[in-house]
Amino acid sequence: MATYTQEKSRFSLARFLIGKPLDTQDLQHQAISKPVGLAVFASDALSSTAYATEEILLILALAGGSAAILGLSIPIAIAISILLTIVTISYRQTIYAYPNGGGAYIVARDNLGEVPAQIAGAALLTDYILTVAVSISSGVAQITSAFPALLPYRVGIALAVIFVMTMVNLRGVKESGRVFAIPTYFFLGIMFLTLAAGMVQFLSGTLPTVADVQAIEHNVVEPLTLFLILRAFSSGCTALTGIEAISNGITAFKKPRSRNAAMTLVWMSSILITLFLGITLLAHQIGAVASESETVISQLARTIHGNESILYLMTLAGTALILLMAANTSYADFPRLAALHAGDGFLPRQLTYRGSRLVFSWGILALAFLASLLVVVANARVTALIPLYAIGVFLSFTMSQTGMVVRFLKIGKLKPGESIQGLETMMEYDKGWRYKMAISVVGALCTFVVMVVFAVTKFTSGAWFIVILIPLLVFGFFRIHHHYKRVAHLLSLSGARPDVRARPMQTLILVDDVHAGTARMVNFAKSIGKPWKAIHIGVNPEKTRLVMEKWKQRIGEGELVVIPSPYRQLAEPIRKYILDLQAENPGTFVHVIMGHLAMETFWEQALHQNSAFIFNVALSGLDNVVVTNVPYQIHNVEMAEHPEHAETKEAETPPVS
Amino acid sequence: MATYTQEKSRFSLARFLIGKPLDTQDLQHQAISKPVGLAVFASDALSSTAYATEEILLILALAGGSAAILGLSIPIAIAISILLTIVTISYRQTIYAYPNGGGAYIVARDNLGEVPAQIAGAALLTDYILTVAVSISSGVAQITSAFPALLPYRVGIALAVIFVMTMVNLRGVKESGRVFAIPTYFFLGIMFLTLAAGMVQFLSGTLPTVADVQAIEHNVVEPLTLFLILRAFSSGCTALTGIEAISNGITAFKKPRSRNAAMTLVWMSSILITLFLGITLLAHQIGAVASESETVISQLARTIHGNESILYLMTLAGTALILLMAANTSYADFPRLAALHAGDGFLPRQLTYRGSRLVFSWGILALAFLASLLVVVANARVTALIPLYAIGVFLSFTMSQTGMVVRFLKIGKLKPGESIQGLETMMEYDKGWRYKMAISVVGALCTFVVMVVFAVTKFTSGAWFIVILIPLLVFGFFRIHHHYKRVAHLLSLSGARPDVRARPMQTLILVDDVHAGTARMVNFAKSIGKPWKAIHIGVNPEKTRLVMEKWKQRIGEGELVVIPSPYRQLAEPIRKYILDLQAENPGTFVHVIMGHLAMETFWEQALHQNSAFIFNVALSGLDNVVVTNVPYQIHNVEMAEHPEHAETKEAETPPVS
Repeated sequence: MATYTQEKSRFSLARFLIGKPLDTQDLQHQAISKPVGLAVFASDALSSTAYATEEILLILALAGGSAAILGLSIPIAIAISILLTIVTISYRQTIYAYPNGGGAYIVARDNLGEVPAQIAGAALLTDYILTVAVSISSGVAQITSAFPALLPYRVGIALAVIFVMTMVNLRGVKESGRVFAIPTYFFLGIMFLTLAAGMVQFLSGTLPTVADVQAIEHNVVEPLTLFLILRAFSSGCTALTGIEAISNGITAFKKPRSRNAAMTLVWMSSILITLFLGITLLAHQIGAVASESETVISQLARTIHGNESILYLMTLAGTALILLMAANTSYADFPRLAALHAGDGFLPRQLTYRGSRLVFSWGILALAFLASLLVVVANARVTALIPLYAIGVFLSFTMSQTGMVVRFLKIGKLKPGESIQGLETMMEYDKGWRYKMAISVVGALCTFVVMVVFAVTKFTSGAWFIVILIPLLVFGFFRIHHHYKRVAHLLSLSGARPDVRARPMQTLILVDDVHAGTARMVNFAKSIGKPWKAIHIGVNPEKTRLVMEKWKQRIGEGELVVIPSPYRQLAEPIRKYILDLQAENPGTFVHVIMGHLAMETFWEQALHQNSAFIFNVALSGLDNVVVTNVPYQIHNVEMAEHPEHAETKEAETPPVS
Repeated sequence: MATYTQEKSRFSLARFLIGKPLDTQDLQHQAISKPVGLAVFASDALSSTAYATEEILLILALAGGSAAILGLSIPIAIAISILLTIVTISYRQTIYAYPNGGGAYIVARDNLGEVPAQIAGAALLTDYILTVAVSISSGVAQITSAFPALLPYRVGIALAVIFVMTMVNLRGVKESGRVFAIPTYFFLGIMFLTLAAGMVQFLSGTLPTVADVQAIEHNVVEPLTLFLILRAFSSGCTALTGIEAISNGITAFKKPRSRNAAMTLVWMSSILITLFLGITLLAHQIGAVASESETVISQLARTIHGNESILYLMTLAGTALILLMAANTSYADFPRLAALHAGDGFLPRQLTYRGSRLVFSWGILALAFLASLLVVVANARVTALIPLYAIGVFLSFTMSQTGMVVRFLKIGKLKPGESIQGLETMMEYDKGWRYKMAISVVGALCTFVVMVVFAVTKFTSGAWFIVILIPLLVFGFFRIHHHYKRVAHLLSLSGARPDVRARPMQTLILVDDVHAGTARMVNFAKSIGKPWKAIHIGVNPEKTRLVMEKWKQRIGEGELVVIPSPYRQLAEPIRKYILDLQAENPGTFVHVIMGHLAMETFWEQALHQNSAFIFNVALSGLDNVVVTNVPYQIHNVEMAEHPEHAETKEAETPPVS
């Protein structure tokens, strides 16, 4: 069995936009340090501080805008920080247990089985789409806060950002951590500066209250119920989205990987808590409110630095940048997770193919399309998207930590020094298993409770959609899985040699008109050397007469059968003819040869009927019917360059194919 | 040469929506009487009274809303009526000269040549699209005038109406004049009743002025210039659209056709003038104004009949109905004219094919798409569309009447009793040719002047688009024509017998994986009986190894060549391989055989890569390369029904194709 080598070639528009193809062997990455790892993986988690406080204030404002009520944002933020600490401690264990990457899908598949894995995956895929929509909408809101004249164009701006981000990701982003580090550390620098300046002003009593801000007005003031407080709490829990990112990307770290990843996770959570509490505290002190036209970050930066200050614009720029980085994270995570599902046969196989630039192109396009749809439906308003967001994340947290509980139970059954091999990772005896399991139990319980609180308190404002969507997705994933299994089963040769002995063959040439392309078909049929028949579908009696006459004059051999088609159908009469032929000659192949005028450009091709495609679809359902396309090329050269045609004098009816 | 007959078959969704196929022989129509002819052909012309007055008032309001200025609408309406009379007299001559149908395209082609014919056709096609957009937008405006709660949904309603109208027309409307007669005569009845009631109130001095109407506000009051008056005049000239309809449809009339058609034209114009003058006069008396939320017809009917009156609703219903009928007229005219162009090779040939229901399906779909686009862009506002409208109609009027002038010049050269044959119609000596030519000259000049006035006064508000579009369309038409001529030339066999002697052949089987579908391909290649080679594109080395092993075990014959593809491309490596093969073996056919897994449903098919299509496109540009698809059918039956597969035990990797 030979191997054939060749060069690559040709320029194309796609190549210009997307870049030249990359060799599969280029698929590798350098190990990254902790500070770079923080920059790469933290953007999703840290960026949620841009909207979490605002969403708490928005819900509290439903019970009236008094300072006392809005002040509840501080205990709520503290509660969320405690939850964040619990989840962080729990996830550290996962990082040590799964040094090759412990995303929720993998942990659930390894410990809980197929259905929980698909649930975790469906939840995460949904949330990645929402991350793009929410982050880009929030990023655009920061920009329109600084430039209110842009407010009417926010949907257009958000879609343009998604488009550019999609193009960049289709080209493939080299995992160059340093480029990622700039916006992350710029954001951290400017944000801590703002919070520090605010704190100094607060402690020295010089912090002013925010001026000229238009709060969202509520027509009806609701009573301050526990339900409302829980609703505000669950809105704030969006701050936790993205903290799972490091557990997916452990392999990117320098050795010892798990240790470095775990330390980065702790740093990230500490920074996140500091930022979140700082923003919430100062927002309350300046009297910030949820507004349609200005974000809380903008109110904060404007009040601390002053309206005209360059630091104000820098704070908003840093926030917008980290939000774009967060959206970009999903462009890596979504296609990778979709490819994992597809590789297991739960999503279309196309999602596993790396495009010419080594990225999962179909996954990127699917993400871009769905996120754009969300942005349009939600009119690029973060508030409209928040009730859909974070349920998925908390569901996947719950699945992942429950998986860890099951894993520790298995470890608990081992004897000292013993180990067993799971699907993904080795389980070793660990005398501290009870203590570690307890952490995972607490983590799983807390995230489960938050998920239920979220689903209940946000149900009517949008969460119902996710509550319905995720089971439907899981159902769809299993339908797809069933389909692939069935096809594999039907195609299986069962290890036996199939019967491929030569069979009789009926060859039919489909003739629409008699011209050079027809001659090419006849030439091919004669070159095969089997007996053949020509078929003409008679739609127009006048044309049929002409075709029969030309056939006799120009081809003058073989039989031309006319099948009348009074309903002007093309595929249906030939289909019936073939079925009759097969009934008369059981066990034969029917070989249908048809012509195709191949133009050089798409627009020229569109001027022709291109019936070959229709015939291919119509006949592909027939057993043992094989369709051959004989193209005849029409080249884009001027007639003068065709001396062999120069003698043409007779005006013929222009043939159509 | 045999003829083969067969039955029709199968149920499909398309058939349910569109209806069962019709025999070509059903293409015929009954001759219609004058009253029915009026109903069929007058809707387009009469319906323009629904907006023409309003558009005049809208322009005059730019110079301030005083009664004196708005009163100019009356002399403007009289001027338009005089123009209408001139065009009517001129068109009567065309009807007598072209008893088989004298649309502008035919008259221009017959007398002026190809370029003017294409200009006239491009102008008319553009205007048919605008007729649909304007009439449906205006019809929806009548409905929202009565039910203002629907105003925010006008774009959606307009699109829904276009969708339903498209479906109805794809089914094919039987030319049953009686059905058309009901809305036309209902409109005429209720409209004359309204005008009569209004006249009685006006003459008895009891006509009130309109109450509670919100005029469109203009920020700047312009001076009342001649330019503004001409602009108002040209807006009102939209009343003339549609009067050419009868000259297209002469063959539908009872004999003597030309006489009956000409009389119907005179009736139609008289009714149109009466309605237009009546509406304009009364609108001025009640103080009607152009409004975003209520049409002038609604203001008129409401003032005359009273708010709560059933007659008010009936007037609006009648107006909405006649507008829908007018739009429907374009659904017959546009596809028919497009088919004429396509038949002459100036538009894609597909437009000449009558679908299974005997209608020009592609033309209907193109019209629906373009009209929907206009409705969306114009936000379903008639006022936004008016500057684009009617230039086309007046251009085609000018072309048609200029054609008649040329025709009379030719007749003038004949001797008494002599006659010559034009392309479409016979020209006979006529001693009154000078007088008749003078009428056509006046008609052509008037419509030409109005067209120029229209283009100049409306240029900045939208007419520029049409002024640019029509030359571009004509250019495009000639490009298409050139393409068809060139293809016909390149395909011409020049009357000679082509060389179709058998040639050597290289057969390649494309192998992605080894399964039952692969066995089918090998079976087909062996049945052809020519030597063959199998080709595998090696994207993934691991898979390549597996395929080579399975090939040895399951097929065990023939050569399997592996072409490595480090850039994961599929079509490009095989394309290069074929080019090399052809260079080594000049004059051979290369026969590429590829497999295709044929699923029963679209959704199942979408789960597979369907690479056959990509290969077909990539290889169709290569000379003497023939591509064969060998489908393998995956049927939607449960596994239990496949006892022949029941023994499968070995788990195979699911193949993907």
